[in-house]
Amino acid sequence: MNKKKIINDPVYGFVSIPYEIVFDIIEHPYFQRLRHIQQLGLSSYVYPGALHTRFHHALGATHLMTEAISVLRAKNVEITEEEAKAVTLAILLHDVGHGPFSHALEHSLVDDVSHEELSVMFMERLNKEFDGALDLCLQIFQGNYHKPFLHDLVSSQLDMDRLDYLNRDSFFTGVHEGVIGSDRLIKMLDVRDGRLVMEYKGIYSIEKFLIARRLMYWQVYLHKTVLCAEMMLVKVLQRAKELTQTGADTELFATPAFRYFLENSWSIEDFRELPNVLDQFALMGDMDIFTSIKVWQHHDDPILSSLSKSIYYRKLFKIEMGRVPVSLTRLHELQQKAMKFYGIDSKAVNYLVFADSTSNSVYSYDGTQINIAFKDGSVREITAASDYHNLSQLSTPVVKYYLCYPREIMNL
Amino acid sequence: MNKKKIINDPVYGFVSIPYEIVFDIIEHPYFQRLRHIQQLGLSSYVYPGALHTRFHHALGATHLMTEAISVLRAKNVEITEEEAKAVTLAILLHDVGHGPFSHALEHSLVDDVSHEELSVMFMERLNKEFDGALDLCLQIFQGNYHKPFLHDLVSSQLDMDRLDYLNRDSFFTGVHEGVIGSDRLIKMLDVRDGRLVMEYKGIYSIEKFLIARRLMYWQVYLHKTVLCAEMMLVKVLQRAKELTQTGADTELFATPAFRYFLENSWSIEDFRELPNVLDQFALMGDMDIFTSIKVWQHHDDPILSSLSKSIYYRKLFKIEMGRVPVSLTRLHELQQKAMKFYGIDSKAVNYLVFADSTSNSVYSYDGTQINIAFKDGSVREITAASDYHNLSQLSTPVVKYYLCYPREIMNL
Amino acid sequence: MNKKKIINDPVYGFVSIPYEIVFDIIEHPYFQRLRHIQQLGLSSYVYPGALHTRFHHALGATHLMTEAISVLRAKNVEITEEEAKAVTLAILLHDVGHGPFSHALEHSLVDDVSHEELSVMFMERLNKEFDGALDLCLQIFQGNYHKPFLHDLVSSQLDMDRLDYLNRDSFFTGVHEGVIGSDRLIKMLDVRDGRLVMEYKGIYSIEKFLIARRLMYWQVYLHKTVLCAEMMLVKVLQRAKELTQTGADTELFATPAFRYFLENSWSIEDFRELPNVLDQFALMGDMDIFTSIKVWQHHDDPILSSLSKSIYYRKLFKIEMGRVPVSLTRLHELQQKAMKFYGIDSKAVNYLVFADSTSNSVYSYDGTQINIAFKDGSVREITAASDYHNLSQLSTPVVKYYLCYPREIMNL
Amino acid sequence: MNKKKIINDPVYGFVSIPYEIVFDIIEHPYFQRLRHIQQLGLSSYVYPGALHTRFHHALGATHLMTEAISVLRAKNVEITEEEAKAVTLAILLHDVGHGPFSHALEHSLVDDVSHEELSVMFMERLNKEFDGALDLCLQIFQGNYHKPFLHDLVSSQLDMDRLDYLNRDSFFTGVHEGVIGSDRLIKMLDVRDGRLVMEYKGIYSIEKFLIARRLMYWQVYLHKTVLCAEMMLVKVLQRAKELTQTGADTELFATPAFRYFLENSWSIEDFRELPNVLDQFALMGDMDIFTSIKVWQHHDDPILSSLSKSIYYRKLFKIEMGRVPVSLTRLHELQQKAMKFYGIDSKAVNYLVFADSTSNSVYSYDGTQINIAFKDGSVREITAASDYHNLSQLSTPVVKYYLCYPREIMNL
Repeated sequence: MNKKKIINDPVYGFVSIPYEIVFDIIEHPYFQRLRHIQQLGLSSYVYPGALHTRFHHALGATHLMTEAISVLRAKNVEITEEEAKAVTLAILLHDVGHGPFSHALEHSLVDDVSHEELSVMFMERLNKEFDGALDLCLQIFQGNYHKPFLHDLVSSQLDMDRLDYLNRDSFFTGVHEGVIGSDRLIKMLDVRDGRLVMEYKGIYSIEKFLIARRLMYWQVYLHKTVLCAEMMLVKVLQRAKELTQTGADTELFATPAFRYFLENSWSIEDFRELPNVLDQFALMGDMDIFTSIKVWQHHDDPILSSLSKSIYYRKLFKIEMGRVPVSLTRLHELQQKAMKFYGIDSKAVNYLVFADSTSNSVYSYDGTQINIAFKDGSVREITAASDYHNLSQLSTPVVKYYLCYPREIMNL
Repeated sequence: MNKKKIINDPVYGFVSIPYEIVFDIIEHPYFQRLRHIQQLGLSSYVYPGALHTRFHHALGATHLMTEAISVLRAKNVEITEEEAKAVTLAILLHDVGHGPFSHALEHSLVDDVSHEELSVMFMERLNKEFDGALDLCLQIFQGNYHKPFLHDLVSSQLDMDRLDYLNRDSFFTGVHEGVIGSDRLIKMLDVRDGRLVMEYKGIYSIEKFLIARRLMYWQVYLHKTVLCAEMMLVKVLQRAKELTQTGADTELFATPAFRYFLENSWSIEDFRELPNVLDQFALMGDMDIFTSIKVWQHHDDPILSSLSKSIYYRKLFKIEMGRVPVSLTRLHELQQKAMKFYGIDSKAVNYLVFADSTSNSVYSYDGTQINIAFKDGSVREITAASDYHNLSQLSTPVVKYYLCYPREIMNL
Repeated sequence: MNKKKIINDPVYGFVSIPYEIVFDIIEHPYFQRLRHIQQLGLSSYVYPGALHTRFHHALGATHLMTEAISVLRAKNVEITEEEAKAVTLAILLHDVGHGPFSHALEHSLVDDVSHEELSVMFMERLNKEFDGALDLCLQIFQGNYHKPFLHDLVSSQLDMDRLDYLNRDSFFTGVHEGVIGSDRLIKMLDVRDGRLVMEYKGIYSIEKFLIARRLMYWQVYLHKTVLCAEMMLVKVLQRAKELTQTGADTELFATPAFRYFLENSWSIEDFRELPNVLDQFALMGDMDIFTSIKVWQHHDDPILSSLSKSIYYRKLFKIEMGRVPVSLTRLHELQQKAMKFYGIDSKAVNYLVFADSTSNSVYSYDGTQINIAFKDGSVREITAASDYHNLSQLSTPVVKYYLCYPREIMNL
Repeated sequence: MNKKKIINDPVYGFVSIPYEIVFDIIEHPYFQRLRHIQQLGLSSYVYPGALHTRFHHALGATHLMTEAISVLRAKNVEITEEEAKAVTLAILLHDVGHGPFSHALEHSLVDDVSHEELSVMFMERLNKEFDGALDLCLQIFQGNYHKPFLHDLVSSQLDMDRLDYLNRDSFFTGVHEGVIGSDRLIKMLDVRDGRLVMEYKGIYSIEKFLIARRLMYWQVYLHKTVLCAEMMLVKVLQRAKELTQTGADTELFATPAFRYFLENSWSIEDFRELPNVLDQFALMGDMDIFTSIKVWQHHDDPILSSLSKSIYYRKLFKIEMGRVPVSLTRLHELQQKAMKFYGIDSKAVNYLVFADSTSNSVYSYDGTQINIAFKDGSVREITAASDYHNLSQLSTPVVKYYLCYPREIMNL
């Protein structure tokens, strides 16, 4: 069977699968499951085209990796076939540990389990199944390989992950301002002292990339309506878990895998020690959560049903967002109104009226800074290299505070 | 509240909602449910970007309708505000009766119930809820209004439905050859003798449109892998229904709404007489089917589980497609092999080894032919008007025959 | 000096120059002159974006050739480095013999001298300058090499020339219907029996390609306003030549190179025998013609000045186009009016009132037919292979007849 | 005759001409001349697709104006039909005073004559011809009308001129990073206190717009190769003028209009007092300069011929660009080498070895700052409104210094 398939990607045109093992991993159920996990969760409630999946993103990032390898090799950076294959697998699998609505899930269903750790677990299982074929991939992914630029390609401020997701999210949301010249950025990658750098002439493209990223954060990823929907999802999952675990409803509708996480609170140790936890996790997709929520709209518990109905039919809460923390007085005032209106107690009201904050810095000094290679051989960090003196300011996090509550109590 | 929202559509850029009632209908659960029904069903198994929904398509077609109205008015075609609103609602709701995986569903879950009939039922319910605001919309949709060109805009060979779906399906699949110049086609619409026509200078664009449509049929809608997946879906649903209705599994996992259709075979009369049938239908989305299939992969029945697993993880059957009918000898030979291999009987084998045919004609003489308006005032049907003498040949249906079977028995 | 430059092409993104000698030829004045010859002549009078040059087209076709070579090699078609370089040079230079407004020029300034013959002459000169480096290129270009598929890539119904110009002309005119999936078409090229073929699964793409080409012909290349402008250009050049050669104006403004062609009528033999003829030809660009016409608007000769003014300021004649030959009676009637109106004789009137015809067949059986390779190993010609029975009809030429005359005499 | 034409613009799709008088002005020779003046001068030497003209840009900006008017009216900003027509004419004609290679020309052929002043002169002439139909247009263009936001639409930091040129230049160069969301920016325009403002939610789009503009400056408009070519053009024009005016060559080839500017140095007063100066200016296009340069390559003067040949065949000088002023020592050293190599004196060498500087600030506080309208009714200037504290830094000009010299003397 010909395993060098071509895939039609509306973002890049035709995308080839570069190695047989890449094809085999794509065919594997662990990877196929990503077809059922959307990249942007509930963002499609604001951008109806944003239904693309982690499956598609992983293929796109893999395509960019193929291009990056060929650009670097043309600049005489040594990358063996073995390394090329490994770094390609690493980017293919970099997000394989994501569950449905990852961010919401991490705050409700599981206990402090990050998708990075799960990605490694999935890779280790695959490595066993494929007789060690992912050894080098794992080394690179975990940053333990002696050519750090390979890890940089998978995970850094200019990795193929970011390049693809900005392109892809812009494409499917229709927010064209987020489009970055990945083509151009990749053509200007190089390696100095073992690390990934950008040629000097790419400096304006990087500035543009950072600003595009910032724009996508506020316009898409942290769009207030999206934030509100996601917080409501966290709340409905917490409520369902409460009802299940307190025994208030032992028969709450849920798909079997989903129920497995409603009934228990698995920690990362559980994932490590009980193989079935990861097996069940692998069976969950967005639809497990969403079909269950749809059924819950008819549940007896007013909090569960009203949250479910609101989410399913997109009758979202009112959200107020600003740059100063939410006033506690106002929060309590609204909670009082809600308690009266819905006839619920001061604990339950936290499901319906709640405040939180979100923050974002476009560029962070976390050891994976963007380095610029000058023609004279020197390498400088981007904020030092740009004639835009205060690019450094992009690393200051912007915090926004928000408050959500049902529209029904707005005018009480 | 400002009801004149703007929606970001990657296909057209910004799309405005033209009337308040359009906004209200969009907000209605009957319309919101379309968010959970993909336009192209299982095509995403071949084109991973093709995840767009009927919700998005309906908004896009509505946008094109707004443009068409403005073009026609600029050519002095009288369209009152009332009519404009009604024809806009008609296109918005033209597909509201679709269920999940419509084509598969019509061959398995329901009995000869077309989505057009269901669309009318949903419109009638909405009409009641909105105190008759959809009276004129219903007249236009059903072809009972005295300005037939309004119906043509909703349903004809050049309706806004087709213009949008070709654009949209091309965009999300990445099959650029299907892109049509909807902009240009709409600019050249006009009305003669009460019917929608195309100006003469648009004749080459129409040829291109017909060829693009033909290409999309064979390359996307009837792509052999997609066909195979859809047939497998039909088979798994039929099997599930059989297991449920024969009492072999009274507890088969399914969402409540889905179960309602597994346990019964509702006819169009049932939909008319029992309000709950439409209510339950309205609760089904793609995910009801797909989560259930995912659970079925662990079912005891080997046919149900193997079909479910194959569909869910995209381990599709082998499909052979050609222009001559499948030989019965070959079909029986393969069925024999399968019976032996799976240890099943000659009835059950039809779930795993089966043959069928599909046909398509790009242009059909069904009373809604494409008419061309010449400068001298005459109107001629496109196949007579084109200097491409045999355009008429596009109306001859092309039939393709296919045969599907599990890969496991290929080399037996 | 790094000769592996990258060029930014809005049509394909980044385009690399694959060989050093390709870079050297691009830098040569014979090739740089193509920067001053537009691909579509006067089409920018209808499509204001269509200003792209033969320089840009040649680079684009070269880019597609690089892709085609890599696709064919991946299918185990043997192409040596030497051959790859030669066929790349052949496509780079395939149009190097074009002069300004080629079609108009061939009917006015030179005598039956085709641009193909001139391309060979330029290549031969370059070959001398580069010490025989173009030997193989010339063999391939002239069809004398023992691997005919290499010639097919340069000149056939599916050559890189056509693929690029359709893409490029669509892009710059904005006639999106002309966009072809060159990416896809190239991916499906193969070689059988030494000739270029298309894989079976590309059959719908070819149909689309042929129809797109047909559309571009009628909508762009033979657009009636463009035709009219080009015919007026032929007329003004003929008039200028007449004035010059009859001695009516020995001082007619013209650039030196242009004057060299106004004062003489060089034949192909002259080009061969007198080196200066090709030297002077190499010095002419669109602007030589156009600046001269601009100056002629103030000339004493009413025919020269009125044609010049009309062309320069785009006050074009009226053109009537149809499928039946122009009636001689009508032609004479209009000529009578013009003679009276302008006070000119029956010979001179042919410059202002004239009739002609143009024809086009999208697909021609000229020995370079499109062949389809089936999976069973057989090869069939496209019209026999398509289920669109009458694709063959695309080879029937469509003839259109037209009549042009000044708007001033329209209502006399 | 139908004057409501539609023009095919590859940037925006179909563009309509909104008023009859707009159509009439477009047809006028003063406007048609813009077909022969490229928007980006010699940038096509780096970006071969960048051949678009000021004609096309003016039509594009007019299209955006139509959209802006309709957006503002929908927000209840009063714009009468009369005003709409006038502001549309103002944007259509905002650049009508440009000559060929404007920047080079202003430093060589004319004396301190800005294109803005010439635009007003052309408008005044047209106003006379059209019996005062441009009265209001002129008032708006010159900032004398009592609704200043209309002037803002034509000339300010967010005017339709910039929105179009960034879009258009990005499109034709292929530098996609310059694409701005003009669609989105326009949708968020509004008017407060009589001035054009941007709604708060557009703030990230403006940041992106400013950064895109900055990128286009350094990557396209001030690209070092483009700068070098333009400086060489200035030098060749100065040399030609010197040769003509000193009587060294009274017969230097030039088109008549071009000669008129070579033989004299017209000041703005001359343009005002001698009607023929503007008449002759109106006759010049890019090709007048370029055809003449082409002929000059064979001239006896070594400076004129070598500059001409270098420009025409794109054998450009070496350019060195940096952030510190060019060292005088190095300049003199190179000049010494050139004097020896070419056998020229210390005055003449300035044509071949020269240094200069260029500067750019993306955003300037020149009274036309960008104002943001907050929901609470307040209006703040963008640098104060953005949470990107140092956006203000974009207003600091960046200066770059450069040095150009013939490659022949590089290695002496």
